[in-house]
Amino acid sequence: MAGNSFGTLFRFTTWGESHGPAIGVVVDGCPSLLSLTEADIQPWLDKRRPGQSRYTTQRQEPDQVKILSGVFQGQTTGTPVSLLIENTDQRSKDYSEIAAKFRPGHADYTYWKKYGIRDYRGGGRSSARETACRVAAGAVARKVLGEGVSVRGALVQIGPHKVDRSRWDWAEVDNNPFFCPDPQAAAEWADYLDGIRKSGSSIGAVVEVVASGLPAGLGDPLYDKLDGDLARAMMTINAVKGVEIGNGFEAATLTGEQNADEMRAGPSINNGLGEPEFLSNQAGGILGGISTGQDIVVRFAVKPTSSILTPRQTVDLEGKDTDILTKGRHDPCVGIRAVPVGEAMMACVLADHLLRQRAYARG
Amino acid sequence: MAGNSFGTLFRFTTWGESHGPAIGVVVDGCPSLLSLTEADIQPWLDKRRPGQSRYTTQRQEPDQVKILSGVFQGQTTGTPVSLLIENTDQRSKDYSEIAAKFRPGHADYTYWKKYGIRDYRGGGRSSARETACRVAAGAVARKVLGEGVSVRGALVQIGPHKVDRSRWDWAEVDNNPFFCPDPQAAAEWADYLDGIRKSGSSIGAVVEVVASGLPAGLGDPLYDKLDGDLARAMMTINAVKGVEIGNGFEAATLTGEQNADEMRAGPSINNGLGEPEFLSNQAGGILGGISTGQDIVVRFAVKPTSSILTPRQTVDLEGKDTDILTKGRHDPCVGIRAVPVGEAMMACVLADHLLRQRAYARG
Amino acid sequence: MAGNSFGTLFRFTTWGESHGPAIGVVVDGCPSLLSLTEADIQPWLDKRRPGQSRYTTQRQEPDQVKILSGVFQGQTTGTPVSLLIENTDQRSKDYSEIAAKFRPGHADYTYWKKYGIRDYRGGGRSSARETACRVAAGAVARKVLGEGVSVRGALVQIGPHKVDRSRWDWAEVDNNPFFCPDPQAAAEWADYLDGIRKSGSSIGAVVEVVASGLPAGLGDPLYDKLDGDLARAMMTINAVKGVEIGNGFEAATLTGEQNADEMRAGPSINNGLGEPEFLSNQAGGILGGISTGQDIVVRFAVKPTSSILTPRQTVDLEGKDTDILTKGRHDPCVGIRAVPVGEAMMACVLADHLLRQRAYARG
Amino acid sequence: MAGNSFGTLFRFTTWGESHGPAIGVVVDGCPSLLSLTEADIQPWLDKRRPGQSRYTTQRQEPDQVKILSGVFQGQTTGTPVSLLIENTDQRSKDYSEIAAKFRPGHADYTYWKKYGIRDYRGGGRSSARETACRVAAGAVARKVLGEGVSVRGALVQIGPHKVDRSRWDWAEVDNNPFFCPDPQAAAEWADYLDGIRKSGSSIGAVVEVVASGLPAGLGDPLYDKLDGDLARAMMTINAVKGVEIGNGFEAATLTGEQNADEMRAGPSINNGLGEPEFLSNQAGGILGGISTGQDIVVRFAVKPTSSILTPRQTVDLEGKDTDILTKGRHDPCVGIRAVPVGEAMMACVLADHLLRQRAYARG
Repeated sequence: MAGNSFGTLFRFTTWGESHGPAIGVVVDGCPSLLSLTEADIQPWLDKRRPGQSRYTTQRQEPDQVKILSGVFQGQTTGTPVSLLIENTDQRSKDYSEIAAKFRPGHADYTYWKKYGIRDYRGGGRSSARETACRVAAGAVARKVLGEGVSVRGALVQIGPHKVDRSRWDWAEVDNNPFFCPDPQAAAEWADYLDGIRKSGSSIGAVVEVVASGLPAGLGDPLYDKLDGDLARAMMTINAVKGVEIGNGFEAATLTGEQNADEMRAGPSINNGLGEPEFLSNQAGGILGGISTGQDIVVRFAVKPTSSILTPRQTVDLEGKDTDILTKGRHDPCVGIRAVPVGEAMMACVLADHLLRQRAYARG
Repeated sequence: MAGNSFGTLFRFTTWGESHGPAIGVVVDGCPSLLSLTEADIQPWLDKRRPGQSRYTTQRQEPDQVKILSGVFQGQTTGTPVSLLIENTDQRSKDYSEIAAKFRPGHADYTYWKKYGIRDYRGGGRSSARETACRVAAGAVARKVLGEGVSVRGALVQIGPHKVDRSRWDWAEVDNNPFFCPDPQAAAEWADYLDGIRKSGSSIGAVVEVVASGLPAGLGDPLYDKLDGDLARAMMTINAVKGVEIGNGFEAATLTGEQNADEMRAGPSINNGLGEPEFLSNQAGGILGGISTGQDIVVRFAVKPTSSILTPRQTVDLEGKDTDILTKGRHDPCVGIRAVPVGEAMMACVLADHLLRQRAYARG
Repeated sequence: MAGNSFGTLFRFTTWGESHGPAIGVVVDGCPSLLSLTEADIQPWLDKRRPGQSRYTTQRQEPDQVKILSGVFQGQTTGTPVSLLIENTDQRSKDYSEIAAKFRPGHADYTYWKKYGIRDYRGGGRSSARETACRVAAGAVARKVLGEGVSVRGALVQIGPHKVDRSRWDWAEVDNNPFFCPDPQAAAEWADYLDGIRKSGSSIGAVVEVVASGLPAGLGDPLYDKLDGDLARAMMTINAVKGVEIGNGFEAATLTGEQNADEMRAGPSINNGLGEPEFLSNQAGGILGGISTGQDIVVRFAVKPTSSILTPRQTVDLEGKDTDILTKGRHDPCVGIRAVPVGEAMMACVLADHLLRQRAYARG
Repeated sequence: MAGNSFGTLFRFTTWGESHGPAIGVVVDGCPSLLSLTEADIQPWLDKRRPGQSRYTTQRQEPDQVKILSGVFQGQTTGTPVSLLIENTDQRSKDYSEIAAKFRPGHADYTYWKKYGIRDYRGGGRSSARETACRVAAGAVARKVLGEGVSVRGALVQIGPHKVDRSRWDWAEVDNNPFFCPDPQAAAEWADYLDGIRKSGSSIGAVVEVVASGLPAGLGDPLYDKLDGDLARAMMTINAVKGVEIGNGFEAATLTGEQNADEMRAGPSINNGLGEPEFLSNQAGGILGGISTGQDIVVRFAVKPTSSILTPRQTVDLEGKDTDILTKGRHDPCVGIRAVPVGEAMMACVLADHLLRQRAYARG
């Protein structure tokens, strides 16, 4: 059934296949009077765009976004913002291999079982190409969040190699092709990933996204909790297999004493600003499904690209045993390009909850 | 805003506070002509019920469920099933301590910031007592899933101590107070948790839930993916900080070769049954957001109970520094009782998606 | 599927059958810090309560409402408000007649076709008894709307007999058993309806509901237009067959010149209040699906009670021809008691849209 | 907030302004394996297309639809169907008049109050041009309904002039520019409407839409009743002010005896087909919010076009009194072109409920 929309007040709907004429997103529920032009959206698309380093797919897509509605004289009007991105590099090739066989780890088999038909060209609807639409929606969401809010992502792990958090520097994220906040790790990852790439293999990764500058009070328990919505948001990104808030799975190993985020009145409250300070952020900025006003911290695990050059066992449409290897242009670590996608999804969740919260603001 | 409902076709809405007169759940979208009595629901509530071992809170609640609507002559009628559970052991005590202070790790502060008022008695709405309603809804969902589907949960980790999967035996889960599938681990956990309990501390845990017997095709990409809905479902359970599908975060460390779930025609397809077999289940039974027909495997991390006997620093309502320690009846490992809750949430997600899928069934 | 909820931000869910132990409603999305006790709700239920004159059913139900959650120390907490009304006068009688036959005009046949089972006692879920839950939800909605907003209903037509609008006096509405704003019409209706009642017949009616004091800007075009939501709201009330906004069907007979609601700056705008004045209200306070700030005017037609003493032809469960006449306690004009129900539904729609609008308020 | 989507399982989202580059609709929840090409959609758009007679606006729009996604090799894939229609005849003209003044009866004032900005060119989002998207979605909905279901509309009243139902002939609907089923009325309307048109005035109308061939059981009481959804659907069409099901407002004047749709076993049930026959259809095919299997009959009133050549009093953006008359290309009776729009909305509601019902089909 209809499942291509996300959000309640700030809601977007995406459409399009990897090798169709275009992909797009309709952003509904955007407040009016926000300044918005293609130039506000394009940089975020460029960040996600393929073919920018040897570590991502060599498909060449300009990903030029067009605003088709919802903006008048440079400002949003409160009506749906329709964004369109044409597909230009739909390489004409022989799809008979993947048309007739199910690629392990891909959605080929499940789409076939569910729909009885699939647009196999480049993965069709299940292609990560769709995430460009998420990034475009996220750019609009950032306008809703405003200048005081930052939503930043970073790659914190490739395969077994994690960043050293003592070296974390947000400024480094744009200085390497991995969105890595630790320059030393980035250098090591380059070698490691070259090896993966040259062998025709692929590797998993972990992405972390942090939002700062948001008020306490976002989230609608018990089933529209902020963390619940973030978990759903991240888990719907291609290849994501796990989501954590704050210390996440590490919380399972801690005692109540270790896990408590203690509070102090602190200078701000003494200055009459009314906000206590937390001495730690194990909770990742969310308690009881509601934001605390601290940084909101989400991490998600991305599995290795399923398209690899080593043959894997599978079956064909007739149910016969066969092998498949996936040639073509693929990301050796699809987790890299998931960074701007994770940012975008977080921005969309936060924009939705910020508007929800405003509906209940007390004078 | 309204956030106390879960599901689309099979949708439930919960209400009630820890120390109000009752809690309850309205299950809407339940098919008609299912046999349903209180006796179908009560055993699942009993499984979650507090006070059954020294490892869970000593609050005594019979958790006796009453069906108030939606059932006629022992069968569901297709109208809303209203289930009510009275609160009986609302111990009369002095709440002035938690009324005036924010307990670290609890939702006290965030509810206060969001709503400007909170029912502090026993945590009010944010109390894990509400999970009884989830379990009741889950019992109805199991009726929708039918006898051929099993949804089973187990505790697989307490603090740093994991089960040995080579000893996994579902039959053992009901033989120990931990829902532990590994009897040797259960024995070790008993000692470990006694120590935690006696020291007035608490500890985190990991729960695994597995569903078997479901067809391929469940899930509505791209935003109502089955794994997205499961992630949201689990993350809305009290104290949950992370969710994984299949190999989850481990996928980040694997290569594409390692992570591929290869397929073979296998005996069933040769017998004309039409279903290939997977040689592994790294994906946890979900590809592209759609079920593969394999076991669906979800794990979630539960943080340690925030109520501990060691004083923690906090602030009071006036914003002054103070300390708090939480006396009373608490679970040293709230993860234990999260097992039947996780089962219930999974059953509800699956019932919803099973009905969704039927809407699109091809003749 | 799940269809027993109404509203988006201010959302209520009703449950219960005419002859079950109780009926109830869960109001979710109610803002916190509103004062709310049973005494705020009971008067509205009393207005709808049966057995208050010879013109409504003689079923005796105290319709005593209990608040089970969502209120703490007399104020709403932002969590779901669960309201319960016990059924007390479920007259024990022989239901074999209506159990085995389909009453024309009732939902007997369609519930049977849809669900394959029905609680035939008193109409089960399709009984107008459920409207008590709507009225209870409406009482909460009025709290959201605040003191400055009035939502008032009146009966404007019984059978062919309409009120004379030149005699309209809101103060008269509570002075007669018909909620009639025209005392002379009320007197005539009394005689007319006595005749209907004594003959065991029934008659249709038209209800008008008017909301005053609301700002311009409510409604979310194009599919959540305020008039669209009002139309749905009213059409879901038992026995309603038509809904009009403003001049409604009369608009079909007018020219553009006649139908235009012209505007003048008027005194308020000259006083710097910024609001122009409309010289008429053909549109019923809604243009393009958005409120104008004028009175919002809705009318709906209620069909005659289907339960009558004259035998009607029907079939039984075995598909054999038979006749049926409906004894028992019935409203000769069910439209009368639809007045407080229409008010309640309008209050709920407006509360929802008022909260929606606040989410987008500009500073 | 987001309000540009309609439907639950079969859901569409429209976007676009009258004078933007394009308008479009995303149809989500369409079953797979339906044959669908532009040729299936275009004829319905052509039926609604302006400029086809002197009785509709002379704006020339080819309304050529393009399918951008969701179809592969001529069949739907189950993914969103994105349909795009370019705006070609955005006549370059001076908009300063309507930019600075509020046209009575139009949405100018309310959009301004709600959003603080409006695309005044041709009415922007509130233009009836958007209904082309509804018609496109309706064409897809017809595919879901299948060949056995017909959804047909007709104009049954212009101003005070109604059709004579004894002369009703569906075959005549396409033989005159009014979609009038009564050829004699059509001839009279031609003269009448020429007078209206030449005087620069406009007139209201009533549209009737009838669906045949649907099973009993569609509709989800109590708040997703089939008639509730139809009422909302029709009321969201531009200029609609009233909606009726079956005998509608006439029901207010009838007794229970007159209004009863009696049932007989009839020949079909005697032949073992199991369906009784109704002797009349006062209810318009819906009882208790659920379809009976009879024809579903909806009527709606369309107000006169607000754009007329006679000056009307209004205010300008500065709040000063002024006059306005609307030059340009307008429909003297916008109700005519509402016929295919009403059909489309009914088809969409029915497709949604047909899928909902399938989810609960009993074996």
